[in-house]
Formats: sequence, C-alpha cells, structure tokens
Amino acid sequence: MTFITLTTDFSTRDGNVGVMKGVIWRIAPEAKIADISHDINPQDIRQAAFILNRQVYYFPENTVHIVVVDPGVGTERRPIAAQIGPQRFVGPDNGVFTPMYLRAEKEEWPIHIVHTDNQEFWEEKISDIFHGRDIFSPVGAHFASGVSLEKLGKSIDDHVRIHLPFPKRTENGVIGEVSHIDHFGNIASNIHRDEIADLGEVDVTLRGVTIHGLVRTFGEREPGELIALYSSTDYLIVSEVNGSAGKRIKPEVGDVIKVVAK
Amino acid sequence: MTFITLTTDFSTRDGNVGVMKGVIWRIAPEAKIADISHDINPQDIRQAAFILNRQVYYFPENTVHIVVVDPGVGTERRPIAAQIGPQRFVGPDNGVFTPMYLRAEKEEWPIHIVHTDNQEFWEEKISDIFHGRDIFSPVGAHFASGVSLEKLGKSIDDHVRIHLPFPKRTENGVIGEVSHIDHFGNIASNIHRDEIADLGEVDVTLRGVTIHGLVRTFGEREPGELIALYSSTDYLIVSEVNGSAGKRIKPEVGDVIKVVAK
Amino acid sequence: MTFITLTTDFSTRDGNVGVMKGVIWRIAPEAKIADISHDINPQDIRQAAFILNRQVYYFPENTVHIVVVDPGVGTERRPIAAQIGPQRFVGPDNGVFTPMYLRAEKEEWPIHIVHTDNQEFWEEKISDIFHGRDIFSPVGAHFASGVSLEKLGKSIDDHVRIHLPFPKRTENGVIGEVSHIDHFGNIASNIHRDEIADLGEVDVTLRGVTIHGLVRTFGEREPGELIALYSSTDYLIVSEVNGSAGKRIKPEVGDVIKVVAK
Repeated sequence: MTFITLTTDFSTRDGNVGVMKGVIWRIAPEAKIADISHDINPQDIRQAAFILNRQVYYFPENTVHIVVVDPGVGTERRPIAAQIGPQRFVGPDNGVFTPMYLRAEKEEWPIHIVHTDNQEFWEEKISDIFHGRDIFSPVGAHFASGVSLEKLGKSIDDHVRIHLPFPKRTENGVIGEVSHIDHFGNIASNIHRDEIADLGEVDVTLRGVTIHGLVRTFGEREPGELIALYSSTDYLIVSEVNGSAGKRIKPEVGDVIKVVAK
Repeated sequence: MTFITLTTDFSTRDGNVGVMKGVIWRIAPEAKIADISHDINPQDIRQAAFILNRQVYYFPENTVHIVVVDPGVGTERRPIAAQIGPQRFVGPDNGVFTPMYLRAEKEEWPIHIVHTDNQEFWEEKISDIFHGRDIFSPVGAHFASGVSLEKLGKSIDDHVRIHLPFPKRTENGVIGEVSHIDHFGNIASNIHRDEIADLGEVDVTLRGVTIHGLVRTFGEREPGELIALYSSTDYLIVSEVNGSAGKRIKPEVGDVIKVVAK
Repeated sequence: MTFITLTTDFSTRDGNVGVMKGVIWRIAPEAKIADISHDINPQDIRQAAFILNRQVYYFPENTVHIVVVDPGVGTERRPIAAQIGPQRFVGPDNGVFTPMYLRAEKEEWPIHIVHTDNQEFWEEKISDIFHGRDIFSPVGAHFASGVSLEKLGKSIDDHVRIHLPFPKRTENGVIGEVSHIDHFGNIASNIHRDEIADLGEVDVTLRGVTIHGLVRTFGEREPGELIALYSSTDYLIVSEVNGSAGKRIKPEVGDVIKVVAK
C-alpha cells in the first residue's frame, strides 16, 4: 500500500492541490492521498512544522508527507527528501521539518536526508514558481513507489533548521509561549505535560488573564468559562468551553504563557 | 470494498481531519474515505444531523459514516456504533444520528446500536479531548473491515435523541421552520413535498416576505427574483435566482415558514 | 485504474460534494477521486473553465473530469460528456469546457461530444436542481468504468462556447486582461509568454500601477515589492513578494493589462 499526504499554503480554491494529485497518480496510480492542511498561513513555515508534527506519526509506516510551504521557490534553496524514523518527507529545505529532526534525535531514530537533484524524477518542464507540482509531487510519488533515497539525490547533513523556542523553568514554574491558535480558538502552548507535572496545582497566565488550575476536559466547566487543560498531544492549552479563547483573548503566536505553582 | 465517510466540526485547517485518515489507514489500508463536511458549526449537533441525513443513503451499502461533533468529549457520554438499515454509523451518543433512527422506523429497517466500550479496538493512548482520532476513527476502521458490532461493544437501546420539530397542519396550510441555510443562501425548511402536495397553489411566507407559488427550478425566473421550490431531497426551500436568499432575508435556523393555500 | 476529478461551486460545507462521491462509488467502487476546486464563485462558468484548463492535462490519460457549475440546472441546457484529446469531461453544456475545445483545436486532437440523454446511466430519480448528484456523477462513473460515449448519448457538434478574449497586439506591445486572482493574490492575465517573448524588456501596467521588467521568481525581490513574472502555466502574472497584489491593486477579472516594450 502506498500512502501520501499533502500539506500546503495553497488553499483548495485554485486547483493547485488537485493538480498535485494528478501528477502523483500518473507516477503512482495506486497511491492513497490524504490532505493534512492546505490552509497554512501563506509562507508560514513554522505553522506548517507545528501542524505536521502533531499528525504524521499516526500514519502508516513509510507514508510520504509532501510539504509545500515554500517562500524560496525558484531560488537556491534545495528540494529535499528524507527518511526520519518511521516516516518519509519531501519538500523544500527551509526548516519545515525541524520538529521531526528534533523528535528523531530524542527517540534516537536514524535520519537520512538527500538533496533531490536527480532530475530524472522531476517533471520534464519545471516552472520557476510551482515546484509543488513539478518537483515535490513527482519525487514524492517515486519515493512512495519504492525509488530509494540514494537514487533521488545526494545525501546532505547541513539541512536547514528553524528556531523553535523551548519553555524555560523559573523558580516556581515555567515560562513558555503560544505556538498555535486552532479553528476552535484553542490556544496551544509549547509547554509539555511532563514539564509541569511536578508543580502540583498551578495558575496559567496569558495576556493578563489568569486561569486557576487545570481541568481534564471541556465538559467539566460551564459554557463560556476559560479553562486550561492538555491538548490531544499533551501540550498545555487555553480554551473557552463551547466558545473561542482565541477570539476572547486575541493572542498571537509567540505570546508569553506563564505557569506558576500555587 | 471498504468505504468510510467523515463529518466533523474541525475545519480542515489544523490537520485534525488528516490525522483521522492516518489512523484509519493503519487499521484498514484498503479503505476509501470521503469527506462529507468539516465545516459544521462548532458543536452544532443538529446541523450535522441534518447534513448527514441528506447524504448517507447515496453511499454504497455498509459504508461507515464517522461523525465527530462532540461537545461532550471526555465526559460520560458514550461512544456508539450502529447498523441502521443499509448504512453504518460511528460517533458520540449525543443525538446526531436522530434523523437516521426516524428514517429507519419509518422504513421498518432493523437498528442495532452498541456502546463501543471494547478498548481493544481503540488507540492505545486516549486523549481526553480528541476521541475522533483515538476512539471513533479506529472503531470505524475496524467496523468497516469486518469486526462485528457484537465485538465492538454491548448493545444498548437507550440511545440519545434530539428534538427535531415536525411541521404542523393548519386550517389552510402548513407551519414549519427553517432547518438549514446552505452555501448558496438556499433556505431549507422541514416541510416535505408530500405534506403540501394537496394544497394546490400556495403562498410561502418567511420573515415577512411572501412568495407566490412554487417553481420547478431556478431558470424559470429572472436573476434576483426570490422563488420557492423543492430541494434535491424534496423539502420546500426559498432561494434567490443567481443570488443568495440567505443574505437577503437573513433567517435563522428555527424561524417560522408558513405555507398557505391560495 | 479509474480516476475522476470534481470541480463545483458547491463549497464543501453542505455535504453536496461528499454525496457525489457516494453515487460514484456505488457505480465505480474502484474509482480514485480528486477534488480540483469546490470554491468556484457561484455560477462563474468562466472561472471554472480557467481553473480546470490549468490542471486537467497533468492527470492520467482518460481521467474523467466532472464539472458542476450549472446555473441552468433543470432547464433545456444539455448534459454532455466528451473525449477531448487525452482527457474526458462530463458536465452541463454551458461553455465551461471552452478552453479544452480551443486547446484540442490547436493541438489537432480529436473531439467527441455526446448529449448524455440515455437515462439508463442516470440515477433513477432526478432532482430538478441537483444534476451533479443525479446525472453528472453517475454518467461520469459509468464513463470512467468503460461505458462508451456512443452508449451514453447522441453525438452533437453544436456545443456551447463562451467568449474568452485573446490579447491584442499593439504597435509596441500587447493589451490583455485579468483572467483570475488566486488565493495568494497573484493576478493572472491572458497574455502567454510566447506573445511577448520578442518584445525584450517591458513595462507592465494594471489599474495605473506600472511594473518595470519581469523577474523569474519571487525570491529575486524584497518582501512587499510588486513584480511581474510568468505563472506556472506560462501566463504573465502580477504579484507582491510575500504579500497579496490582489489586495493591494484590487483588480477585477476583465481589467486591462498593458505590456509595452521599453
């Protein structure tokens, strides 16, 4: 079975996601393709990295995740393909795979990255502004169909990483930051459950709003109440029951979130 | 062949629909998955029920329809799976399948519902806030792959229903209500064609606007005209030719629609 | 392998795209289905034609492209199916396939169009307002599964075309028009690379804004700069680096774009 996912900032309006599926199926007609997101904020590499990292490990082994959030398209930035532990990735070398590199290092998974410069596996004609269609889709389809990394290009180890801030321990708590605000207005932080587990009861403060204590799920409080809890991937989040904490608190990615032991 | 559909209020922006497909394909790699809608209004069980009911009977027999509109996630509300006549359903026991129960009763189809409490068919680790990924997707994938309802959990017959108002007959017509406003601004009512067939020529009134007579299709009137006609599922709707009756009349779900014989 | 694409103005909110997949899979359970776009502006035949034409030739041979942008649904306008060179099409005879007819004439591909009036390949019950579900999906599924055009209906050669303006040559340049504004705010024109290749250095003017010279890709200029370049399908476009030329210049489809040799 051949599985491929797509993550882009294209939106699905103009047909540019559809055309990638056409290119993939010409090369790998058996491929099953899932959309992860096509509503990444334009050119927002960090958001794509965040969303991808939450989802990819739930896919079957060796699924090829094609990512096209690519402000450097047509410039010197390299197209890459990688085997990172159990999953495979294809996209621009702009740091969008950073959380996967970090995860692999933590788990001691092998990482193999190549600069996919073997044009035998590209489309014949290459646009200067749509490598999603002309390079990443065909390379991803060949990779998913069994073409080895060795054939796709030359190994590299100077791949680009983006800075992903870690939370800091304070005397009586942790200082982290907002990493994502989702469709429901849930405000995700970069503070993992393990980092505050030993603090006992805590206060969580964001943009001047303090929430006392954590809950387990939404239904424990009344509609309209602000709550702090753990996300489905075990990070601290701030939410409003049956409402949008995002609309109410209006935070931005990068805002400080403070956790203090009571 | 294995078919699964997904209906959620997640939007497709954050990757939470994509990850469900990953979980499904790990269990049922042969499954073909269709998205019904991911733009249900947050926590709007009634809207999900309405949209689902219009679409599910067009799918191949025994398609598994996974629904995740789940304000009670992590609380005592039960996860359920059901065979309702020719189609299968998996989701929270919050009433979202009510129109399917009603349809089955009308058609005298058998209904078999289980509380899917057999954790053998769940993900190993269960989040308190994302049962779509951790319970409904794996249970749906196993159900679609041939695991019986008996194995998925214990039979129940005290499943939750929501109140879905029926139209009332008046001396010279019918009083119903608005059940949905779609992307084009078509305003759907809960009044079925059969309920007004005997009235002959009618006037349709909604929010002080009266439309005289029904038409068969849009092209019978000029652009900009308000019309009343039957939807593709035979319910009375109010539309604007080449425009949006929703934007013009600004109704809400639950608003009264009156049909009066001329 | 059986491939089908869908292009509509339905949005994905109300489940009307999902239901088409159900109908298709009942007839062609092996079909792989890709969405091209469901966010065509309501009833905008020209936009659908533009988007479709950019994408369809990247799909495997004999992919069936079902298009439902259909202001004339339920009227006398004919449902048609066509083999146009290497690709297949099903939809209303309202001109939405015009760019494909033009391309076929240029490439000297054979064109075979039929009025799909053989109701054996329709759904049993036909709504007056949703032929996407009741005619185009089942006809497309049968066509993709091997039913011949001859069986689907009677050949026609009086198919409808829409007017698609070509750019005009001036003494020292070319006058074209805006054909599309995409999700990123890239403003596409109808001026092909070949039509201005001989002009050398050029100025590009749109709504009083003049851009001096063309670039190859976004990364050659600073964020916020307006640039002119070629699209991934070789048409002249106007863009803002890391921004939206659409929001900045606010053009409309049909606006004049002038190219003048320096």
